Amino acid sequence: HAGGEAGRSSRPAPSLSDSFRSTRALSLALAEHLSDADATIQSMEDASPAKWHLAHTSWFFETFLLRDHLPGYRLFDERFPFLFNSYYEAEGQRIARFSRGMLSRPALDECIAFRRAIDHAMESLLGREDCAPLIALGIAHEQQHQELLLTDIKHALFQNPLGPAMFDRLPDTPQHKGEGWIEHQGGIARIGQDCADTRFCFDCEGPRHRVLLEPFRLSRSLVSNREWAEFIADGGYRDPALWLSDGWAWVNREGVEAPLYWHGDDHFTLAGWQPRDPDAPATHISYYEADAFASWAGKRLPTEAEWEVAAADADPAGGQQMDRAETVQPAATPDLFGSCWQWTRSAYLPYPGFSPAEGAVGEYNGKFMSGQFVLKGASCATARGHSRPSYRNFFYPHQRWQFTGLRLAQDI
Amino acid sequence: HAGGEAGRSSRPAPSLSDSFRSTRALSLALAEHLSDADATIQSMEDASPAKWHLAHTSWFFETFLLRDHLPGYRLFDERFPFLFNSYYEAEGQRIARFSRGMLSRPALDECIAFRRAIDHAMESLLGREDCAPLIALGIAHEQQHQELLLTDIKHALFQNPLGPAMFDRLPDTPQHKGEGWIEHQGGIARIGQDCADTRFCFDCEGPRHRVLLEPFRLSRSLVSNREWAEFIADGGYRDPALWLSDGWAWVNREGVEAPLYWHGDDHFTLAGWQPRDPDAPATHISYYEADAFASWAGKRLPTEAEWEVAAADADPAGGQQMDRAETVQPAATPDLFGSCWQWTRSAYLPYPGFSPAEGAVGEYNGKFMSGQFVLKGASCATARGHSRPSYRNFFYPHQRWQFTGLRLAQDI
Amino acid sequence: HAGGEAGRSSRPAPSLSDSFRSTRALSLALAEHLSDADATIQSMEDASPAKWHLAHTSWFFETFLLRDHLPGYRLFDERFPFLFNSYYEAEGQRIARFSRGMLSRPALDECIAFRRAIDHAMESLLGREDCAPLIALGIAHEQQHQELLLTDIKHALFQNPLGPAMFDRLPDTPQHKGEGWIEHQGGIARIGQDCADTRFCFDCEGPRHRVLLEPFRLSRSLVSNREWAEFIADGGYRDPALWLSDGWAWVNREGVEAPLYWHGDDHFTLAGWQPRDPDAPATHISYYEADAFASWAGKRLPTEAEWEVAAADADPAGGQQMDRAETVQPAATPDLFGSCWQWTRSAYLPYPGFSPAEGAVGEYNGKFMSGQFVLKGASCATARGHSRPSYRNFFYPHQRWQFTGLRLAQDI
Amino acid sequence: HAGGEAGRSSRPAPSLSDSFRSTRALSLALAEHLSDADATIQSMEDASPAKWHLAHTSWFFETFLLRDHLPGYRLFDERFPFLFNSYYEAEGQRIARFSRGMLSRPALDECIAFRRAIDHAMESLLGREDCAPLIALGIAHEQQHQELLLTDIKHALFQNPLGPAMFDRLPDTPQHKGEGWIEHQGGIARIGQDCADTRFCFDCEGPRHRVLLEPFRLSRSLVSNREWAEFIADGGYRDPALWLSDGWAWVNREGVEAPLYWHGDDHFTLAGWQPRDPDAPATHISYYEADAFASWAGKRLPTEAEWEVAAADADPAGGQQMDRAETVQPAATPDLFGSCWQWTRSAYLPYPGFSPAEGAVGEYNGKFMSGQFVLKGASCATARGHSRPSYRNFFYPHQRWQFTGLRLAQDI
Ligand SMILES: [Fe+3]
Ligand SMILES: [Fe+3]
Ligand SMILES: [Fe+3]
Ligand SMILES: [Fe+3]
Repeated sequence: HAGGEAGRSSRPAPSLSDSFRSTRALSLALAEHLSDADATIQSMEDASPAKWHLAHTSWFFETFLLRDHLPGYRLFDERFPFLFNSYYEAEGQRIARFSRGMLSRPALDECIAFRRAIDHAMESLLGREDCAPLIALGIAHEQQHQELLLTDIKHALFQNPLGPAMFDRLPDTPQHKGEGWIEHQGGIARIGQDCADTRFCFDCEGPRHRVLLEPFRLSRSLVSNREWAEFIADGGYRDPALWLSDGWAWVNREGVEAPLYWHGDDHFTLAGWQPRDPDAPATHISYYEADAFASWAGKRLPTEAEWEVAAADADPAGGQQMDRAETVQPAATPDLFGSCWQWTRSAYLPYPGFSPAEGAVGEYNGKFMSGQFVLKGASCATARGHSRPSYRNFFYPHQRWQFTGLRLAQDI
Repeated sequence: HAGGEAGRSSRPAPSLSDSFRSTRALSLALAEHLSDADATIQSMEDASPAKWHLAHTSWFFETFLLRDHLPGYRLFDERFPFLFNSYYEAEGQRIARFSRGMLSRPALDECIAFRRAIDHAMESLLGREDCAPLIALGIAHEQQHQELLLTDIKHALFQNPLGPAMFDRLPDTPQHKGEGWIEHQGGIARIGQDCADTRFCFDCEGPRHRVLLEPFRLSRSLVSNREWAEFIADGGYRDPALWLSDGWAWVNREGVEAPLYWHGDDHFTLAGWQPRDPDAPATHISYYEADAFASWAGKRLPTEAEWEVAAADADPAGGQQMDRAETVQPAATPDLFGSCWQWTRSAYLPYPGFSPAEGAVGEYNGKFMSGQFVLKGASCATARGHSRPSYRNFFYPHQRWQFTGLRLAQDI
Repeated sequence: HAGGEAGRSSRPAPSLSDSFRSTRALSLALAEHLSDADATIQSMEDASPAKWHLAHTSWFFETFLLRDHLPGYRLFDERFPFLFNSYYEAEGQRIARFSRGMLSRPALDECIAFRRAIDHAMESLLGREDCAPLIALGIAHEQQHQELLLTDIKHALFQNPLGPAMFDRLPDTPQHKGEGWIEHQGGIARIGQDCADTRFCFDCEGPRHRVLLEPFRLSRSLVSNREWAEFIADGGYRDPALWLSDGWAWVNREGVEAPLYWHGDDHFTLAGWQPRDPDAPATHISYYEADAFASWAGKRLPTEAEWEVAAADADPAGGQQMDRAETVQPAATPDLFGSCWQWTRSAYLPYPGFSPAEGAVGEYNGKFMSGQFVLKGASCATARGHSRPSYRNFFYPHQRWQFTGLRLAQDI
Repeated sequence: HAGGEAGRSSRPAPSLSDSFRSTRALSLALAEHLSDADATIQSMEDASPAKWHLAHTSWFFETFLLRDHLPGYRLFDERFPFLFNSYYEAEGQRIARFSRGMLSRPALDECIAFRRAIDHAMESLLGREDCAPLIALGIAHEQQHQELLLTDIKHALFQNPLGPAMFDRLPDTPQHKGEGWIEHQGGIARIGQDCADTRFCFDCEGPRHRVLLEPFRLSRSLVSNREWAEFIADGGYRDPALWLSDGWAWVNREGVEAPLYWHGDDHFTLAGWQPRDPDAPATHISYYEADAFASWAGKRLPTEAEWEVAAADADPAGGQQMDRAETVQPAATPDLFGSCWQWTRSAYLPYPGFSPAEGAVGEYNGKFMSGQFVLKGASCATARGHSRPSYRNFFYPHQRWQFTGLRLAQDI
């Protein structure tokens, strides 16, 4: 990705209806690359079957839009909420998370039929003003699940000794490495976003509030596979002095010696096993690894406020993000957004004055505010247009099946 | 089944070639009732995906017949032995048992193509005398996996809250309950079978040897669902005095209150959830449950020698066994064979003078001789013709996803 | 505690030598209430045997003072570092954490002999200027382990169905409940402490730095047992809407229905089972419970910066803290310090510009900066004089065997 | 031991009263070598604290003799049955097995006071004919717990990196290796024992019954440490062809490479770490190891019937057994009894016609009849006089903290 996107992001945003339709279509396009069996398997409790993502995102529209706002609407299948509710306690009982991989039925085709029915029913709500906020939420939700679908199926296919591919080839993405540092003089700045001021944001991004920063600099480049290989060669995974205590326990318990998906000079991608490009950003690393690398490099991870302030003028729709159903794989980029999510040293906690949204959708973000760290930016698997500077992605410090990498910072 | 079978078993046995072809065809017929996704899922470590059974049985013929005995034979796919070897250490490394459920590829169609190629190549070995023993072993092996395929997919479909069915209806099997007892005066008898004396048997069935029995009687009927309901109603699952110590720990750890697949007055079958017939044999019970029931009833389980001696004149191809691809579900029967495997109180141990077969196939039975109990007879999911009086089926005392039931015995 | 303490804290601080001697003596006084067997048992991986605390704190002085700074010093026992190193990777291999409970030898008497030898040898270092910072660290370290010794043995004795007591009676502590709120207008404030500016602080308390606060108020009282009982009676432990997602999973997995040590109207104390005083602060609650309670009360937990700023003028040696070897049990107090540690909503993370101390002692705090939350104040089991406003205690959100409680906050 | 024992066993058996007193005294003598802390720790769920053994055996006499047969008897402490009942469901609730190690109270002294009170009260029952069978059972029970006390404390002390010793030196036991084989021509024999025919036996030893044997021979020597070292050197622990499937899984899961307690040329004993005598019997081996060794040696394990028939004329009180409180450690012996328990290939199952004793003591043996294997003989830790040819010891195939070894057999 290069100059094209800057122009793109200044183009008028698509209408909500168009966003709905194109987002829904993209999910289906992803599904076309999967067999019924591919779409059924679940490789770990953190991941879900592709089929489940396709149906769950439809359940979301059915539940929070059609059921609640379309008079006379009848559920597509009364048994589906039990299957496809993820974690909304207010919406009742649901299948145990690790049993999602047992759903050989409904078949992928039936899930797609469910999607079609929802799409059809949604047409009558797309123009309603009162529904617009929830529709925007549903679109953002579906985009998040597109990214999860890709990272979950990557993890599932990786379990297969045959190393099967979802797509038949890697994209031909040029590498453009950023150079040097973005410097910031510190002082009082504003971060976060009030949902009232924007077309859409998640509740956890607000309220917009003041923060006090000390002078810092943020690297214009992501840490590369080459640098990571140096960290390994220098004994990075064997020196406890570099690691957080929980991280060192994790390394030893799991026998970690490299990022997830690395094997020799190859790594596993959505196009199967491929040679690893030393210039591409290192990804599929945990917070523990990111922190240890930063210690080894004599730097540190940025805070979420530093990252957001530094990205104030960056194009959130720039860089390498997902535009269509093809292999997603990170490349070096001078952009702050894209290629991979970037670990910050900030715990995912409520902003001053935060309160969750009303109703069941209030469970979307707020209840996850313990034990996780914030990631900023966007990845090669993020639907372009989905992210923004105030965006707060979050994962537990040991998780690394997402496209996660790091960008170093330091005090000035 | 009724009078017909007695005649059937006196008919000339089919040729080895015919057995091979009909057995292989029956596996395919079972697969026709499953989608690619159905055939991929694995519900627990004890179970395997249907697809895996289809391919593993073909790997068995490829490895022990084609590779070893057909000059110039080339493997269908060099990666398949890693995927489809079950537990033969002498045949090299293989996929972890609980990762079989991650094999969305090869697809069911590809597994069937593998089967077709093996069937075709096997034609040139079917007439060879020197191969006959291994072909007979491969057929018996495939029949065992047909039974496992049915019990494994039943367990997998049971995990699905939708309760999906493999077959669209229950068979219309008449109930013919056996009455009274078979009595035996004890004394020295012979059990077991030498493989040299018969068309085929497993190595663990021999050597044929003498045993000393005390007078006993064996019930002509299997314990029924009605009797089992009485056991439950009488507090059978809550009285530790009835249970083995390991069984009582299992009941409490797992919260067991009824046979597997029971819910209210219904139970789960390969035709989905169905009302439970009180006259049908109680099945899907563990050894612990069988033993507790026998204690409650003031009786005991038979030994394997008692059962075999009592069955000396029974028709092993009689009773309710599997003839075609349809729902298998046990019915009351006066036959000793069929409907369900019957727990004995005999541990699965080597007979006097036993030594395993030579080579990798020596791992078939002998290495499992600790911690398991012998079951006798045959079940509704056993391919008719597969079993015989000397047959020794074996499972761990907590396992109950097979069609397992019990027939009471007592001292005279 | 009452008026007396305010005067006490304005008295001149004791000399380092006196602190060393009185701290060491207090540990021994605690040990006098324990048998060899009491001092040996370990009830969970998070806890350590009392004997181990006594020896480990001596190992700390032996390693970082005597070995490194007293020429010609010979180890008391060359095998002890393996036994009594806690988590200092730079100091070599050590016994697995959960095997500490297997150390029936050395006996409690031998551990005390070890202490005596260390105390004697330390006399020659007590006056050395260059050793003063490490001696101060060793004293603070031992005070932390005094608190752990008390909370660990409480947990161990609680496992015993006899409910044995360490002390024979509860102290007669008057209840003085604080009323109303401390208000703060927000703005830029300074928190943290540079170790160079003070007699002693831990590295993680610094650097002192600016923070930006919004207007808030902090309760002058701790949440009481009476209020907690209302939370329970109102279904607080059964309403997922009040809980963080990880907290709700914890409640259900562990079957949590009340604070640790509650049973009916009684609770377990170091003086055995006792009636629960409704006016006393609720303690032994996890972060998850504290957060759920705050949600139920329509308030929130304070941040660590809010708490510290509000406590700028509070007497850190005031309130109910540990002065001698007797039962410690929290009472209502108008003080900010004392009675119990107070959960904040701040994750335990590095302050801007933080870097760990040099050498092995650099592992003291910094490597624990992931996944934990900060607690402020001091508890009834904290050695009086140990804490201060900048003090950062930290535990994982599920842990509750410490004297942990909460003080509510809200936005103005 | 040598000629002396043969004479000893022909001496008149001691009276029941004398047996009671000497057995009770021996337990106390063992306890004298342990501190309160030693007697408190529990190293695994299979083991119990020494203190618990001392109290549990007293609880047995209190419950089944004093409470049930001594009019007006009042319990020593009403809380003790909850603590010291082992597994008698009919005797009510009890402490979780793995919490026995949390009992720092009652102290060892208090447990001894409990013993003294029971001993005193028992005096009035010792002469009563109606109590004799239960007293004999209580004595045998206490002897079993003496052996467990020794093997449990050995396991606990082994966890301690200091390798502490219970006794200060090894006994000076001469090695007398047996040579050659005992041959038996097979045929019908009688094994087992009816309790009515003898002073005492356990219910599981009967009924005496006929068995049919084929010709076999049984080694006159136990497998030695030297032979075991050859097995290791020959790759015995790395060749799956030698192992049962469950055994191979156990070896790999636990990383087993040698018998328990081996390290280099030393092994851990009750006198601490000691050089290993190559001529002494290999002990602390699991059934899996014993079976693998026998496969490697081209032999097999005997059945329990073979062992018992071969031992019909052996002196059950001969060989190396426990006479006093000193280090027990096996030595080479020509005796069938003593030095170590010997694995048989027989599962521990009910004999024909077996029914458990009436009442709670019926739980003593019968409920353990699944999943375990029979061991014959006696060990260096067995109280001399405790065992006999019909004795059936039993453990799970993975357990090896007892003094377990093997004696080879083969078909003739
Ligand atoms: Fe979702
Ligand atoms: Fe197989
Ligand atoms: Fe410490
Ligand atoms: Fe006992």
